[in-house]
Amino acid sequence: MLEGKNVNLRIVEKEDLELVAEWVNDLGFTGEYEPVSQESETDIEKQYDKLGPEEKWFIIEEKDGSKIGLIIHLLDPGKRMAIGYYLVASERRKGYGTEAVGIMVDYLFLSKNIVRIQAETHPENVASHRVLEKSGFKREGTIRKSFFSRGVWRDTVLFSILREEWKEPKILTKAASQS
Amino acid sequence: MLEGKNVNLRIVEKEDLELVAEWVNDLGFTGEYEPVSQESETDIEKQYDKLGPEEKWFIIEEKDGSKIGLIIHLLDPGKRMAIGYYLVASERRKGYGTEAVGIMVDYLFLSKNIVRIQAETHPENVASHRVLEKSGFKREGTIRKSFFSRGVWRDTVLFSILREEWKEPKILTKAASQS
Amino acid sequence: MLEGKNVNLRIVEKEDLELVAEWVNDLGFTGEYEPVSQESETDIEKQYDKLGPEEKWFIIEEKDGSKIGLIIHLLDPGKRMAIGYYLVASERRKGYGTEAVGIMVDYLFLSKNIVRIQAETHPENVASHRVLEKSGFKREGTIRKSFFSRGVWRDTVLFSILREEWKEPKILTKAASQS
Amino acid sequence: MLEGKNVNLRIVEKEDLELVAEWVNDLGFTGEYEPVSQESETDIEKQYDKLGPEEKWFIIEEKDGSKIGLIIHLLDPGKRMAIGYYLVASERRKGYGTEAVGIMVDYLFLSKNIVRIQAETHPENVASHRVLEKSGFKREGTIRKSFFSRGVWRDTVLFSILREEWKEPKILTKAASQS
Amino acid sequence: MLEGKNVNLRIVEKEDLELVAEWVNDLGFTGEYEPVSQESETDIEKQYDKLGPEEKWFIIEEKDGSKIGLIIHLLDPGKRMAIGYYLVASERRKGYGTEAVGIMVDYLFLSKNIVRIQAETHPENVASHRVLEKSGFKREGTIRKSFFSRGVWRDTVLFSILREEWKEPKILTKAASQS
Amino acid sequence: MLEGKNVNLRIVEKEDLELVAEWVNDLGFTGEYEPVSQESETDIEKQYDKLGPEEKWFIIEEKDGSKIGLIIHLLDPGKRMAIGYYLVASERRKGYGTEAVGIMVDYLFLSKNIVRIQAETHPENVASHRVLEKSGFKREGTIRKSFFSRGVWRDTVLFSILREEWKEPKILTKAASQS
Repeated sequence: MLEGKNVNLRIVEKEDLELVAEWVNDLGFTGEYEPVSQESETDIEKQYDKLGPEEKWFIIEEKDGSKIGLIIHLLDPGKRMAIGYYLVASERRKGYGTEAVGIMVDYLFLSKNIVRIQAETHPENVASHRVLEKSGFKREGTIRKSFFSRGVWRDTVLFSILREEWKEPKILTKAASQS
Repeated sequence: MLEGKNVNLRIVEKEDLELVAEWVNDLGFTGEYEPVSQESETDIEKQYDKLGPEEKWFIIEEKDGSKIGLIIHLLDPGKRMAIGYYLVASERRKGYGTEAVGIMVDYLFLSKNIVRIQAETHPENVASHRVLEKSGFKREGTIRKSFFSRGVWRDTVLFSILREEWKEPKILTKAASQS
Repeated sequence: MLEGKNVNLRIVEKEDLELVAEWVNDLGFTGEYEPVSQESETDIEKQYDKLGPEEKWFIIEEKDGSKIGLIIHLLDPGKRMAIGYYLVASERRKGYGTEAVGIMVDYLFLSKNIVRIQAETHPENVASHRVLEKSGFKREGTIRKSFFSRGVWRDTVLFSILREEWKEPKILTKAASQS
Repeated sequence: MLEGKNVNLRIVEKEDLELVAEWVNDLGFTGEYEPVSQESETDIEKQYDKLGPEEKWFIIEEKDGSKIGLIIHLLDPGKRMAIGYYLVASERRKGYGTEAVGIMVDYLFLSKNIVRIQAETHPENVASHRVLEKSGFKREGTIRKSFFSRGVWRDTVLFSILREEWKEPKILTKAASQS
Repeated sequence: MLEGKNVNLRIVEKEDLELVAEWVNDLGFTGEYEPVSQESETDIEKQYDKLGPEEKWFIIEEKDGSKIGLIIHLLDPGKRMAIGYYLVASERRKGYGTEAVGIMVDYLFLSKNIVRIQAETHPENVASHRVLEKSGFKREGTIRKSFFSRGVWRDTVLFSILREEWKEPKILTKAASQS
Repeated sequence: MLEGKNVNLRIVEKEDLELVAEWVNDLGFTGEYEPVSQESETDIEKQYDKLGPEEKWFIIEEKDGSKIGLIIHLLDPGKRMAIGYYLVASERRKGYGTEAVGIMVDYLFLSKNIVRIQAETHPENVASHRVLEKSGFKREGTIRKSFFSRGVWRDTVLFSILREEWKEPKILTKAASQS
């Protein structure tokens, strides 16, 4: 488990997939910019079983163990490490997203020989931009008509953070105490 | 879950397959025009496990959670999106079918980059024609001797709705509030 | 080989695939309404190797053995038998298409327990309509925005011929003399 | 074959792979910004056999049939259509790259229901930027430390062209004469 | 079970994998020099199912059956037998590691026709060096920038023990009394 | 092809395997310290077909195209890049080995994001030590009884070169002229 101040990241186990499926099928969960998608627990389980070594899903938990969101990392085809995250509506705007992203960035730079981490978000999703900027990400550009969602083709904004911008862990400091 | 005023569409899970099998084997369920077919739960489970990414089954539920029918979408070989639906006999003629179709049409045009949705029904099945017409479908033609059912080759009527005829969601409006 | 008066239909062999690939990659071959598509001989060979029992490709040959086109039959997902055909530009408007379709219709009704054969063509493709009508096909309707081709979504017109409309072979009479 | 004024694009066949391997192993071919990579013809053949339906390789040929380069298209994981191209050193700066890209853009928008085509190039590769801009591509941003090449992590510039910017075919006009 | 004075080595069974996963995901377990890695029980199970005939995992148990660590052996690509071990933090510095290594060395020389056993450890991990030296291992050299861990490339020290240095079992004496 | 002053490295093609098999089966080729091994061309071809993306074989050629040896790179299980090389007896002691290793080191550091390259040689093989030292490799230690060869267990000496020791290409300078 990756432990932060207010939230922990816990790797998703098979037992969690029922909840993940429930979240995925809740139009409110992924937020107003994300695709509307309905998938059975069987669909989710198939995806989970196919995850590659560089693709992991984590539950975002509060310290009392209540599950409030998902954060994942994966490699894009260009071998670039990318992350994505969602919180249940009731737990947004409390800094939990920023902390979860901070933990993930620390974890990825500590555990993997990578030079950058990227994330895509929506031009209007100011809250998500702030989360990324607070975590040290920089805006690289806008991918026009990036994907189809809720009836229209939508742009995404590409953000990234480089290892030299990250410098050192902010939250998982204990994990790197020997570096 | 896709939520309407009187009914919701919930993606089919493995636990639902027993009920699906019961329905499929009930000559009354699929209605007087549909093929008579008897399939074991194992048969149904095999079909379910083989569903492609563009083929999903949904349970039509009333607001109290009682399960009253099935609605599915699939791609025909020409890559055309098609839907099909059935209600238990006791719940027909209450507008539930029309609402379920309306939710599905909203969902498909919101979530997928498609230009048309089609459905086939039976020349004598006036109730079904009304459901489709109320949902904005237009009659394209009659496919003669389209399939064999209950001892005879039967025609089907092909209906479709185009994205430009749909224009915007009628029921899943919240899901598209950002479009 | 299925022999007509001016053309024969010969089942496609592996050796023919080089020519088939050449035709497929010639924008002029499939005609002004068909999709623009470029496929390697390896692609074509993969499709050929995957042909199902009810899906066959035939070369349309003149009596001197010169190869002038393709005609195929396949089952659509509704298990409906469908045909498609193309001629090289120089051999169109000579009645060869009509004869090839007539041979195929005879062949299919003689060899298979089917009640209908269908074909889809383009609203503006009057030549193709005439071929089908001369062969006894009837227009069933127009499938709007049926497929994407040459930059736009195009309608197709659905034609079919029923066994009772066909009655008996017109060209493969010898083939049926034993029936 | 896709025919332009000075060059044609011909789908790569197995017989071409020996030449492709020769090019790939020539440090001069892929140009001073591209990765140094040595691959056997067997490696290349494995990649070729694994190409998906939306991933094709084309030889760029002059009108006399001499082979001067490669142009490919593929889907990135976000389902975005991307292209890449290379010319042998002696044939650069003659407008052949621009024409090959123009043909490919026409071909992709004519044959596929896509809304954008993207390409990545190198910040210092001004020649390649000009090729893309002349073909109507717009710069979307810079992906920092995008990939490892020739001993250092290099940025790439992301370009794209939207269907509405393309409007209509410029070179494959005959192919779309009916649109 | 391989029985020592204070600890036993028990081969890992599927039921143990939940605990193994818990340990692997505890940043404190593998120690300050080891990679930070988060893996689901499903990931661990996949690795377990893939173990080769010369690769085994053992639980280190105290005599009361409490599980305090892991010790494994595997073949490196040069077909050299290698071992690795971890103890939960609370049970370190009690001689359990030394005993577990002693049991494993006895077991491997008794059960397999090998001439050497190797282990890699970290230059600063003095405790681990003492464990290996007490067990008769000799230092062979330092592998520079041997692997990436906690944000930096780290050296490892290579230790080995030869059969002629081992001479005879020290702990599994009963096991060898028949030799 | 990777071009040096007196020798080139050319990726091994299927046609080369007959010669490779001949060399492998020539006790004189692999040298007095290497294992005696006899393998059919079929064995060699199987190994060749199984080569991973990070494992490649190259023929060492003189400028006149005469084939004088083999040089390979592969990943050890610890993901460490390793190389090995052999020259036919008549071409040794001419500096060709040193040049081939220099080209390979340049190629690997230019083309792959690795921090070290390693090689194992034999304590008595002074010629090979000199080749590695001239190429900038440093001795890391001696692996005792490292492998069985010609009747006895033999030690190997582990050498490595780090990216920071390599600094920049010495032979493939053109390939990196843009770095």
